[in-house]
Amino acid sequence: MSKTNVSTRLLVIPASPIRKLASYAKAAKKNGVRILHLNIGDPDIKTPEIMIKVLNDWTQNPIGYSQSHGEPVFLEALKFYYHKIGYKFIGKKNIQVTTGGSEAISMTFFAVAEPGDQIIVFEPFYANYNSYAAVNNIRLVPITTEEKTGFHLPPKSEIEKKINKKTKAIIICNPSNPTGTVYTKQEMDMLAELCEKYNLFFISDEVYREFVYDSLPYTSILNYMESMPDKMILLDSLSKRYSLCGARLGMLITLNKEISAGVLRIGQGRLSSGLVDQVMASKLTEVSDDYFQEVHKEYQKRRDVLYEGLKEIPGVYLKKPEGAFYTIVKLPVKDSENFCKWLLTDFKVDNTTVMMAPAAGFYGTPGLGKNEVRIAYVLNTDDLKRAIEILKRALVEYKD
Amino acid sequence: MSKTNVSTRLLVIPASPIRKLASYAKAAKKNGVRILHLNIGDPDIKTPEIMIKVLNDWTQNPIGYSQSHGEPVFLEALKFYYHKIGYKFIGKKNIQVTTGGSEAISMTFFAVAEPGDQIIVFEPFYANYNSYAAVNNIRLVPITTEEKTGFHLPPKSEIEKKINKKTKAIIICNPSNPTGTVYTKQEMDMLAELCEKYNLFFISDEVYREFVYDSLPYTSILNYMESMPDKMILLDSLSKRYSLCGARLGMLITLNKEISAGVLRIGQGRLSSGLVDQVMASKLTEVSDDYFQEVHKEYQKRRDVLYEGLKEIPGVYLKKPEGAFYTIVKLPVKDSENFCKWLLTDFKVDNTTVMMAPAAGFYGTPGLGKNEVRIAYVLNTDDLKRAIEILKRALVEYKD
Repeated sequence: MSKTNVSTRLLVIPASPIRKLASYAKAAKKNGVRILHLNIGDPDIKTPEIMIKVLNDWTQNPIGYSQSHGEPVFLEALKFYYHKIGYKFIGKKNIQVTTGGSEAISMTFFAVAEPGDQIIVFEPFYANYNSYAAVNNIRLVPITTEEKTGFHLPPKSEIEKKINKKTKAIIICNPSNPTGTVYTKQEMDMLAELCEKYNLFFISDEVYREFVYDSLPYTSILNYMESMPDKMILLDSLSKRYSLCGARLGMLITLNKEISAGVLRIGQGRLSSGLVDQVMASKLTEVSDDYFQEVHKEYQKRRDVLYEGLKEIPGVYLKKPEGAFYTIVKLPVKDSENFCKWLLTDFKVDNTTVMMAPAAGFYGTPGLGKNEVRIAYVLNTDDLKRAIEILKRALVEYKD
Repeated sequence: MSKTNVSTRLLVIPASPIRKLASYAKAAKKNGVRILHLNIGDPDIKTPEIMIKVLNDWTQNPIGYSQSHGEPVFLEALKFYYHKIGYKFIGKKNIQVTTGGSEAISMTFFAVAEPGDQIIVFEPFYANYNSYAAVNNIRLVPITTEEKTGFHLPPKSEIEKKINKKTKAIIICNPSNPTGTVYTKQEMDMLAELCEKYNLFFISDEVYREFVYDSLPYTSILNYMESMPDKMILLDSLSKRYSLCGARLGMLITLNKEISAGVLRIGQGRLSSGLVDQVMASKLTEVSDDYFQEVHKEYQKRRDVLYEGLKEIPGVYLKKPEGAFYTIVKLPVKDSENFCKWLLTDFKVDNTTVMMAPAAGFYGTPGLGKNEVRIAYVLNTDDLKRAIEILKRALVEYKD
């Protein structure tokens, strides 16, 4: 029988650097090893009880489709949220509910670029942008940012060099996963000016909007939306804000009517996002401000523990992250993927080891990030301290 | 300010014929009109109580990510299901959990065809295939089937005429949404032979597998999978079987390792399907056989009520559907979209009207289906009888 070939585009979908070592982790767990997960941004913080209560009180039966645009009660809740944070121009018609922030990214890439077109991104960047670029047949053009400047943007002229006829958009993740960088008003202004000058879409992924530390000022793309209504697209999600990663809820916000109409048609094709998840999340209107203040305090504390701990390890280098709950860390190893694998297969302290994401997968330029890892500080401070200690001892023992 | 253009591919995403009249329905509802929904396959049948109980008993907090491949307890339940229906060769590694059957369709189109490639489909076909073809830049090549043969397949030679170098797969929906056709073993054999002869993938969407009436024999693609492991892809979903449309759970089943590995990488990009939905649905292992027997009996009764009622209306023509819960019906109108719109805007009986899906959107060949509608018989028999009566009176009054 002749072999039937899959598409070449399927073969080039990259494996997630966050999940690619999963099989080694599984094997380690099978052998009874405890793994401290610094590889994935899946918070241990509790989902608000009032959301869990929606499940406990659930009576609606059958579990029917929701609406393609979004479940009405959830759209209302989202409108409430954006109004509360000061953006009263956002109406329900400007919101498309998506199945996770991931779907919002994918829909946006499809909407702004033809196959073969380019979107500018600042590396290191959220690795799943690669998957969605591949799925939508577009090319991400990376502009490198560096550890020594805290991964802030290069001068305007450096960015302009990468803009050509195929460039359709600039995407930024603010605060940044994986670097923890919070972009300044000057940086956001510069990107908005470039998008105006070269007629590009400006896409801002603000999933970590509330995770900004040390009272740094924060500049959302929403500040530019009314004056540049056609060009601005906000990608958002509740996963991190309310510890709802498993609820697969995101949103795409824009004042561009063609995009709203188009992504709704894509949305109709996949019928709806999950009903239960949406109804559960719509309780965000009743979550007290204390909830997030506590969450914020906890993450700032974790950030401090991680930073103070790591910078004392010989050969380890990082800048203090400004936001989100990630950081890119330089390690004294040649190949961080080998090191991360070795941690899972060959190393443990008191039967415990650490899982991290090799950083090369967060770069678009081949060869970069080889001696870096991305760390998500989503563990309590005791476990974080333990993880730092394990990493410290591992680096002494490891030979590459 | 210059206008920033969205991609041309966004503009050509078709509106769902199932949902495109939604705004008229919304307006009618606002005016207090009751709408009998025959337009969408969103069953009124109850979800098994044992699944709702999972929500009521929920304690897991936080709602974290599930695994990209699928939540382990859900994968176990799916394996249990396929083994129970006789396909013991299916292991967890052959199952990819998807966010709705829709994601399984989209992943499959991406996996088997390059941009510009063709997939053969029998029209009228499930309209959302159009969305996923557009999203994945592939072309659906329709082969027309006809009312008079109950929408069964044309001879092999007719299908062969449409196969060329760009053809990568044949997709069938069995039992068919929108026609209700259950394909015979001879038809499935013929498609398998064609796929063997021309080295094509054979994709079977079997979401309605259990909805086969009058004890007709049913031939699943699973019967061919072991002998043609590289070529066969099953698309499946729990939405209809357990009235879980709003739970967004589907599966892609294949023995082709490249496809399994590739769709898992796509799956990693979107992180996971919903945790709560998967845990809820994994209770399928404890749903008694009585549950589905009742569901089946109810749908067969509805099918009979619909068929007997409609065939008595002058000028209305349909074949008795063999499976699923849809049928394509010829109406004595010139343009069924105008008629369906008119039903929502200008017609009511006792303040009640009927919503149906214009059938043109279920055809790939322009001009076909203009005087047809798709009806989903997902209402109880009293409402169905009422809907038939309304339709009968509307056809008397309507002038096009």
